[in-house]
Amino acid sequence: MLRPDAKAAAVGNAVDQDRLWDLLMRLAEIGALENGGVNRQALTELDTEAKNFVIEWARARGFSAFQDDAANLFVRMPGAAASQDPLIVGSHLDSQPTGGKFDGAFGVLAGLEVLESIRQQGLTPERPIEVAAWTNEEASRFLPGATGSSAFAGTRELSAVLDNRTVDGARVGDELAASIAATRAELRPIHSVRPCASLEIHIEQGPILEQAGLPVGIVKGIQGVRRIQVEILGETAHAGTTPQALRKDALDGAARIMVSLRSLTKDDDDILRLTFGRIDSFPNSPGTVTDKVRLTIDLRHPDKAVMDKVEGLIREVAPAQAHPCRTEVRVLSTVDPIAFDPSIIGLLENCANMMNASGPLMLSGAGHDSLHLGRICPTGMVFVACEGGISHHEAENAKPFDLALGTRVLAAAAWTLANR
Amino acid sequence: MLRPDAKAAAVGNAVDQDRLWDLLMRLAEIGALENGGVNRQALTELDTEAKNFVIEWARARGFSAFQDDAANLFVRMPGAAASQDPLIVGSHLDSQPTGGKFDGAFGVLAGLEVLESIRQQGLTPERPIEVAAWTNEEASRFLPGATGSSAFAGTRELSAVLDNRTVDGARVGDELAASIAATRAELRPIHSVRPCASLEIHIEQGPILEQAGLPVGIVKGIQGVRRIQVEILGETAHAGTTPQALRKDALDGAARIMVSLRSLTKDDDDILRLTFGRIDSFPNSPGTVTDKVRLTIDLRHPDKAVMDKVEGLIREVAPAQAHPCRTEVRVLSTVDPIAFDPSIIGLLENCANMMNASGPLMLSGAGHDSLHLGRICPTGMVFVACEGGISHHEAENAKPFDLALGTRVLAAAAWTLANR
Repeated sequence: MLRPDAKAAAVGNAVDQDRLWDLLMRLAEIGALENGGVNRQALTELDTEAKNFVIEWARARGFSAFQDDAANLFVRMPGAAASQDPLIVGSHLDSQPTGGKFDGAFGVLAGLEVLESIRQQGLTPERPIEVAAWTNEEASRFLPGATGSSAFAGTRELSAVLDNRTVDGARVGDELAASIAATRAELRPIHSVRPCASLEIHIEQGPILEQAGLPVGIVKGIQGVRRIQVEILGETAHAGTTPQALRKDALDGAARIMVSLRSLTKDDDDILRLTFGRIDSFPNSPGTVTDKVRLTIDLRHPDKAVMDKVEGLIREVAPAQAHPCRTEVRVLSTVDPIAFDPSIIGLLENCANMMNASGPLMLSGAGHDSLHLGRICPTGMVFVACEGGISHHEAENAKPFDLALGTRVLAAAAWTLANR
Repeated sequence: MLRPDAKAAAVGNAVDQDRLWDLLMRLAEIGALENGGVNRQALTELDTEAKNFVIEWARARGFSAFQDDAANLFVRMPGAAASQDPLIVGSHLDSQPTGGKFDGAFGVLAGLEVLESIRQQGLTPERPIEVAAWTNEEASRFLPGATGSSAFAGTRELSAVLDNRTVDGARVGDELAASIAATRAELRPIHSVRPCASLEIHIEQGPILEQAGLPVGIVKGIQGVRRIQVEILGETAHAGTTPQALRKDALDGAARIMVSLRSLTKDDDDILRLTFGRIDSFPNSPGTVTDKVRLTIDLRHPDKAVMDKVEGLIREVAPAQAHPCRTEVRVLSTVDPIAFDPSIIGLLENCANMMNASGPLMLSGAGHDSLHLGRICPTGMVFVACEGGISHHEAENAKPFDLALGTRVLAAAAWTLANR
């Protein structure tokens, strides 16, 4: 069991709430929006400006900065044993088009605060610590999301992304090159660094911590996401002339599928997430029986076996409930869940106890860069409560105290891992 | 009880299947579409061309033609008692943008065939008979539909329509004036004629007759139509992070409302028509819990009391099923049902028997010009089977034999009413 020692406690306690908050607010000026949010989408000039802000912060403290072929940025605190694999602490700087100040940015700046705390204690970790800002986690400007962390972890080939187009029509490869050229950090090959472990801190983006009145949570894992499309194929008919018995009403079928699936997937622990987020109905005319419905189901669970089971249920329920309409079920995309390394989870629990943060174990409903890092090294995440569970929105907010408390847990854990 | 006599039988038997079919096919050339349908929307040049085709037909046989302020067209066969109120037999010449050859047009041309049959028998009816082509039944180019028949019957003021706009932006009053100027018929004031009775023949636009293997049906009445909008108001949330218990999912609510209403309104006789024709969901994004759904319900029944009861049920079920979402229910439009005059229904049954058409009693699911005529005089309708129940579509089709058989019933009834 990994336990933080007295030095880890000192590093954690050195985290400065006001300094961290100040850094967050200064970064939030880059791409600031009227209603308190930010628009700082991946590989735009504002995204590069944010990177250069981080690089200036690093240079002012004597840390080096690197970037790789995926435009990932790394601020490096050297270790006593220079050749050891580094610990990576990071998240992302890019935002949704009308995103908030904290989603992603907090994880990068908390990493910088960890370095600052160590530096102020006059300490040097055994291993190097690198604070990473991963490229395009949000996928708001181009697909796929988590471009940088997935390329770094090798879960997706960077070359497969280069010819994709941004929403404004630019080629991703060109945007990457331009961003790298404008970022004032040394270039290094993408697979030249292999982390010994990785940590990420992030606002929860959900209401669980706030509802429980707890500032900090320890993430056990990230649930998988599967998008499943159910197409219900009926027949148009005149709403006035066609008796019910002769109809093949696709919207009726869709309604029965939704109600039935909702009831069949009810779990007492409320862990399964099944969302009918999108419905497209044709011809969608008030006086016409519906011909065709496309229903997109978003399915999430931490256990892949459960996801497979629910997918099977959808394949069973759809034709049975939609009758006499036909149905077609197809998986649009799938990301398997990840369970974080038990040794990291245990360490984070110990650090939370030490820092007087009760730190309940919880799952991440949303995807994060750690989903990819977790495939190549022991990985863990810390969540901090956010107001109303709101994110991807200008109203996104979190308390300075909670952010600092989470960063203390992160700092103690980082110190421990960097000295293992 | 009105019974057709030997002359009525002679008039009915004089209906010529080939002549009627030929007339239908010639009219269908005006506005013909590639796939067999027609695009002959109200008050367009093609609509006027169709009217002038009818007027030429009339002039060639010595009949006079009139039009009124609503651009309704009337072909008049004089009666022996010239001052008597005429019998009106009619329907409409306008079509949907990709409509069929029969919807409306058949009712006008069958009226002409009735006149031709009487003329060929060398007979003169006691009362004048007028074949009417009512303006803009379809409402495909501008609202409200049944413009001509409702103005004629006084159920809607023509003046209230004049400032409406067509889909192509023209003012309805200007289009009416242009159509009247281009139509080669004498103008007469709209309320100068009061019919003693009215008849209409129309393709069924539904599958009932075809499924029963019967060519002709007698219409008991036209069901009412009420459009009711249910708005379900929930809250957006992240599909991955928000537990089911904390969601207010508007689409879930809509699905429960649909399934519940479908089950609660099941009638053994399959008379009630309840259609969820349109659903608009917001933000309609796969990864987001639905905030708001607008569901448009089309409710039809021949009994107004039943319609009121179902509306009450919707007002009850919506908030109960949508909980914890809020609901708002509003009536968008309503047209009360009409029961046709029993003496006309009895006459049409007798005529059907005489013409060896079994003529079952049935309801009209769709609205027709007779809905308005029925408010001011004894009115009845004859339905003819149509292929697959398809209408408002280029594939609309009907059998020459069935069309002629229905016209025989119409002719015998028209002769009887014009000599009452």
